[in-house]
Amino acid sequence: MWNKLIESVPNISEGRRTSVIDEIVAAVDGDGIRVLDVQSDPDHNRSVVTIVGRPEMIGEGVIRLVDRAVQLIDLGKHTGQHPRMGAVDVIPFIPVKGTTIEECISLSRDVGQEIAERFGIPVYLYERSATSAKRRNLATIRRGEFEGFAEKILLPEWKPDFGEKRVHPTAGVTAIGARQFLIAYNINLATTDVKIAQQIAEAVRHRSGGLRFVKALGFSLEDRGIVQVSMNLTDFAKTPIHRVFEMVVREAERYGVMVIGSEIAGTVPRSALIAAAEYYLRMAGFSESLILEERIEEALSGDS
Amino acid sequence: MWNKLIESVPNISEGRRTSVIDEIVAAVDGDGIRVLDVQSDPDHNRSVVTIVGRPEMIGEGVIRLVDRAVQLIDLGKHTGQHPRMGAVDVIPFIPVKGTTIEECISLSRDVGQEIAERFGIPVYLYERSATSAKRRNLATIRRGEFEGFAEKILLPEWKPDFGEKRVHPTAGVTAIGARQFLIAYNINLATTDVKIAQQIAEAVRHRSGGLRFVKALGFSLEDRGIVQVSMNLTDFAKTPIHRVFEMVVREAERYGVMVIGSEIAGTVPRSALIAAAEYYLRMAGFSESLILEERIEEALSGDS
Repeated sequence: MWNKLIESVPNISEGRRTSVIDEIVAAVDGDGIRVLDVQSDPDHNRSVVTIVGRPEMIGEGVIRLVDRAVQLIDLGKHTGQHPRMGAVDVIPFIPVKGTTIEECISLSRDVGQEIAERFGIPVYLYERSATSAKRRNLATIRRGEFEGFAEKILLPEWKPDFGEKRVHPTAGVTAIGARQFLIAYNINLATTDVKIAQQIAEAVRHRSGGLRFVKALGFSLEDRGIVQVSMNLTDFAKTPIHRVFEMVVREAERYGVMVIGSEIAGTVPRSALIAAAEYYLRMAGFSESLILEERIEEALSGDS
Repeated sequence: MWNKLIESVPNISEGRRTSVIDEIVAAVDGDGIRVLDVQSDPDHNRSVVTIVGRPEMIGEGVIRLVDRAVQLIDLGKHTGQHPRMGAVDVIPFIPVKGTTIEECISLSRDVGQEIAERFGIPVYLYERSATSAKRRNLATIRRGEFEGFAEKILLPEWKPDFGEKRVHPTAGVTAIGARQFLIAYNINLATTDVKIAQQIAEAVRHRSGGLRFVKALGFSLEDRGIVQVSMNLTDFAKTPIHRVFEMVVREAERYGVMVIGSEIAGTVPRSALIAAAEYYLRMAGFSESLILEERIEEALSGDS
C-alpha cells in the first residue's frame, strides 16, 4: 500500500479529439502514480483528469502531462463553452491520505516554478497557495480568458507568480494551487418549484450568509419532476456533510417540502461518512481505532 | 495487503497466570496470522484472544493455540465466575474481509475435526455451524460445564460432532463454529432509573419481541449517574446499528428520557458506519465505488 497520497485534478482545454486526450493522459503514467478518472466534455471542449500519486512522484507526472498538452493543444484555435486561459487551465493538488495541505502548497510552488521555467508558461498560484487574497479565486484570475490575458498580464497586480509577463502563444497561462478535497453533493426536493431550491441554496451558501465552506445553486430536474440544491462542500472537515444536510432539511420544512434524498457526484472521502454516522448515532468517545479495519491494517502494517 | 481475512476469537480458561496466557498467545504467531488483542479477566479466570489471518493460515494458528492450552491448562483445577467447559472453551470464526460465512463454516468443521483427532478433545459445532437447532446456542451446549460433562456427553442428544464420547481429563470439551461479526453497542440514557433501561432492553431485543439480531440488557452506571441499554448486535447487515439506535431513542421518548450518547465496545466494521451515514443522509444510488479510498485502492490494486 501507498501510505501517503496526493491527488491532482488537471483541467485541460481539449474535450473533443479523443486521440489527443488519450495521448496527454497516457503521459501521466509512471512509478508511484495512477490515473483514476478522465471526464471529457465536448461542449465545454475540456477534460478533467483525476490523478493520484505518492507525494514525491505526482509532480513529475503532472509535468509530463503539461509537456504533452503544450505540444498538442493550441488555445488560439480552441472554442468551447467553458472559460479557459491555458492549454492546461488549472492544476489543483489535494491531500487525500497521510498528507497535509502544507505539503500540497509546497508541491504546487515547486511544480509551478518548473512549468514556468521549462515551458515558458506564466503561472498563477491560487486557492490555498495564493500569494494575495485576490488570487484565491480561480474565476477572478481567469477573467478575460486566453484572449484577454495579453493585456491583463501587463497590469502590475496581475504579474505572474512564476515566469515572464508574456502569455505563451499556444498554451496561455496556468493556475496551480493546493485545496481541500471538494465534495459535490446534491439534495433533491419533492417539488417542481425551482424557486424553493434557489432560496434554500441562498440560505445555506457562504456567499449569501450561510455556512462557511458551502457553494450552492438551485436547479430544476425537469425530466424527474423535482428540484435540486446542488452544492460544493469545499472543506468537509470544517463544514461537515451532515450539518449541511440537516440545514437543508430544516429550510425545506419551512416551505412544507420533503427532502427525497441526496447524491454524491464524483467521490466522497470515507471520513466524511464516518463523521456523519458518529454525529447521528451520538457517539461518545469515538475514534478511528474503534473501526475494525483500522485495527486490522495497523496489525498488518509492514506486511504486504 | 491481505485481501481475504477471517477473524477468530478463541476464549481460553485462564485469566490469572500471565506467563501462561502469554505462552498460549505466542503460539498463534506465524505467517499470514496476527494477534489483534488479548483481554484477560482474573475474576472470570478467562482470556479472549482476537486473531486475524488469511483463510488458509488461521486454522493452523488456532490449532497451535489449542496445542499450548492443552499442555498448560488443567480444568480440574480451574475456578472462576464465568461458565466454562474447555481449556479452550469456544472458538468462533468470523468473516471480516472478502470472505463468507460459508467459508467460516467449512473452516470450523475442518479445525474441529483436527482438534478431536489430534488432542482427543470432543468437539461441538455451534452457531451457524451447528448440526441441530439445539446446538446453535453456546449457553445450551455449555450447560453443566466441565464438571457435568462426564454424564452429559453420554446422552444420545449430546454425542459430540467430532471425537469420542469421553471428556478430555484436563482440557474438557470445545465448541467451534462460524458466526457473523458481533457489535457490542451501548446506549446511555439521562436517568438514574434502571427500570427504564431494562424496559427499553426488553422492547428492542429479539428474545422478548424486538428486533431479530439484538440481545439487550439494562444496567445502571452508578458512578456516572446514568443508565445504559447494553446490546449485542449479532448480524448488523440485517439489523443495522442505526435502526437499533432510532428504536431506542423512540422508546426513551415514551418515558420522557433523553439519549445522551452511544458507545462501541470493542470494534465496529466500517461498513456498519457507512450504512448509518447512507441511511441518515437519505442517499440515493449509493455504492462503495463512490468512496474515494475504494476508488484509490482499486486503482492501486496489484501495487504494494
